[in-house]
Amino acid sequence: MTENRQVLIDSLPNGKLAESNYRMESAAAPTLQADGEVLCRTLVVTIGAGTRAGLQGSASYAGAPQTNIVMNGTGVARVEQSNSADFSVGDLVVCSTGWQDYSVQQANQLNKVQDDIDPAHYLGALGTNGLTAYFGLLTVGQPKEGETVLVSAGAGSVGHLVSQMARIKGCQAVGITSTPEKCQLLIDKMGCHASVSYKSEDFRSALKEACPNGVDVYFDNTGGDILGMSLRRMNTHGRIVCCGVVSQYDTSSPAGGPSGIPGLLVNKRIRMQGFLVFDYAAQYEAARTEIKGWIKSGALTPYNDEFNGLAQAPSAFVDLLAGGNVGTRIVRIAE
Amino acid sequence: MTENRQVLIDSLPNGKLAESNYRMESAAAPTLQADGEVLCRTLVVTIGAGTRAGLQGSASYAGAPQTNIVMNGTGVARVEQSNSADFSVGDLVVCSTGWQDYSVQQANQLNKVQDDIDPAHYLGALGTNGLTAYFGLLTVGQPKEGETVLVSAGAGSVGHLVSQMARIKGCQAVGITSTPEKCQLLIDKMGCHASVSYKSEDFRSALKEACPNGVDVYFDNTGGDILGMSLRRMNTHGRIVCCGVVSQYDTSSPAGGPSGIPGLLVNKRIRMQGFLVFDYAAQYEAARTEIKGWIKSGALTPYNDEFNGLAQAPSAFVDLLAGGNVGTRIVRIAE
Repeated sequence: MTENRQVLIDSLPNGKLAESNYRMESAAAPTLQADGEVLCRTLVVTIGAGTRAGLQGSASYAGAPQTNIVMNGTGVARVEQSNSADFSVGDLVVCSTGWQDYSVQQANQLNKVQDDIDPAHYLGALGTNGLTAYFGLLTVGQPKEGETVLVSAGAGSVGHLVSQMARIKGCQAVGITSTPEKCQLLIDKMGCHASVSYKSEDFRSALKEACPNGVDVYFDNTGGDILGMSLRRMNTHGRIVCCGVVSQYDTSSPAGGPSGIPGLLVNKRIRMQGFLVFDYAAQYEAARTEIKGWIKSGALTPYNDEFNGLAQAPSAFVDLLAGGNVGTRIVRIAE
Repeated sequence: MTENRQVLIDSLPNGKLAESNYRMESAAAPTLQADGEVLCRTLVVTIGAGTRAGLQGSASYAGAPQTNIVMNGTGVARVEQSNSADFSVGDLVVCSTGWQDYSVQQANQLNKVQDDIDPAHYLGALGTNGLTAYFGLLTVGQPKEGETVLVSAGAGSVGHLVSQMARIKGCQAVGITSTPEKCQLLIDKMGCHASVSYKSEDFRSALKEACPNGVDVYFDNTGGDILGMSLRRMNTHGRIVCCGVVSQYDTSSPAGGPSGIPGLLVNKRIRMQGFLVFDYAAQYEAARTEIKGWIKSGALTPYNDEFNGLAQAPSAFVDLLAGGNVGTRIVRIAE
């Protein structure tokens, strides 16, 4: 019998997420029962802050949270057995593996990974993070050449791609992040022309200085005070892309909205628009083709930061929510 | 010498606007000095809640407020003398008359009023109010047939036109207003299929009941708690048209923004967009033609409520801010 290690949601977080909200169990690996099923071995999973909202009650698009189920997550897996003519043993696929060694997938839920690029990119720049950056910035934000694009959680899995895509489009890219080290990284490696730490003593002045021409597109991954401060830097006819609310995920008592809403939106004719990348599924392939071109030409350099071993997944998640990551956080589970 | 009565801003309001923030003075009527000037006698002015923001400090698009100047306002005036070939004595024009009997205007600042419709409509449905309703609802809100359009300050100068235009476009129109009497008026006379008082004991449930299919377009004239409550009724891909913030004008300490921003915007993919009607000036004439057609066909019935005499202008404004008006508030100054 093949062992299947699984990380289960043991309890829902009350306040901040803790490693103790998870437990690890071992079960027998599942077996194929029907036509169209494929047995997948998880090689690597990605961890995104957005999944924290799924533990949060009815406020999330993911529906009511449950316990005693395998933690959800997207991964790259290798086909071990196949009851589908579309997949062969050894194929690499992207799917909802969850935090476990083995899963049985329906063939129509699998996306085969092309081998012309490092498959780990399918969890980052060519996965949900990259597509989120792409459609959020380009379709919702509609930046024009020469405009200033500000992005919060700038060193994050989505943010570090937004700044690079903004630069590709001829914009001034400005990133907001936590530490001076990350600020430097944003400029050295992630396409930013300027960067600001929201923990700096005078964030307000620092933000103003980093955006001398104001902000035309603000790509908001955080909400909360950073949104409130950025709102005050917006230019007339500016656009705020509401992508995520990481400042509010890891708490049971979300804060009120920023003051100045709706007054500032009226006076400056600002458009503030929420989006979910899933709405753009019909355009994924075209977007991936363009992003892949940027990676191959060197215009875009995606960053992954890696944890090793399934048992590390909970701590990798807790650390991510505390702002520990740079780029896309992934956990390697098997070779 | 012809007397020119003027209402001046005597002091800026500290908290709520009071009649005592104004004083009336008498001066000599101005005379024409140069080519292109036109002497206008004010017949009627309109009073809109938006001008309250101009007394509020730098938060307004109108710039820093001043005292000891004639209170600004738009009116219909009759040409008394003309140094312009484009205007003759007796012509009726719309211009920034201010709260006074006489003003000298530059000919290029005047809009001649056609005589095929009651000229008072040029202060309401064919003026800034009507154009604001038109571009805010149709261009920003983009309602589709069968959708639900919710409007706050529903009996107001803009709101009562929004609900009627929504009905013209085949939408379910729902209005929010203050009293049961106004609720009834919205349904009987202003095109609403349902109406809700925000002062009702359980506004939350009443709003839910009035919008059984949720809200697709929310036309927000108020901000504040009404915005917060309406936000929670929005459907996926809903649009919030940010037109005004009347709940916050008449105070020195504006409230924070609604909770749920930006989280709800993301989860429901909501677009929230501020606008100022002046940005649509190039399309005013086409819009007026369409609105005039609706008035003539009986599809749209604009409401004016009238005060008589220049001295009544301050009390008409204070009462307006307290929610006393139905439709467009105008003050008649001369025959």
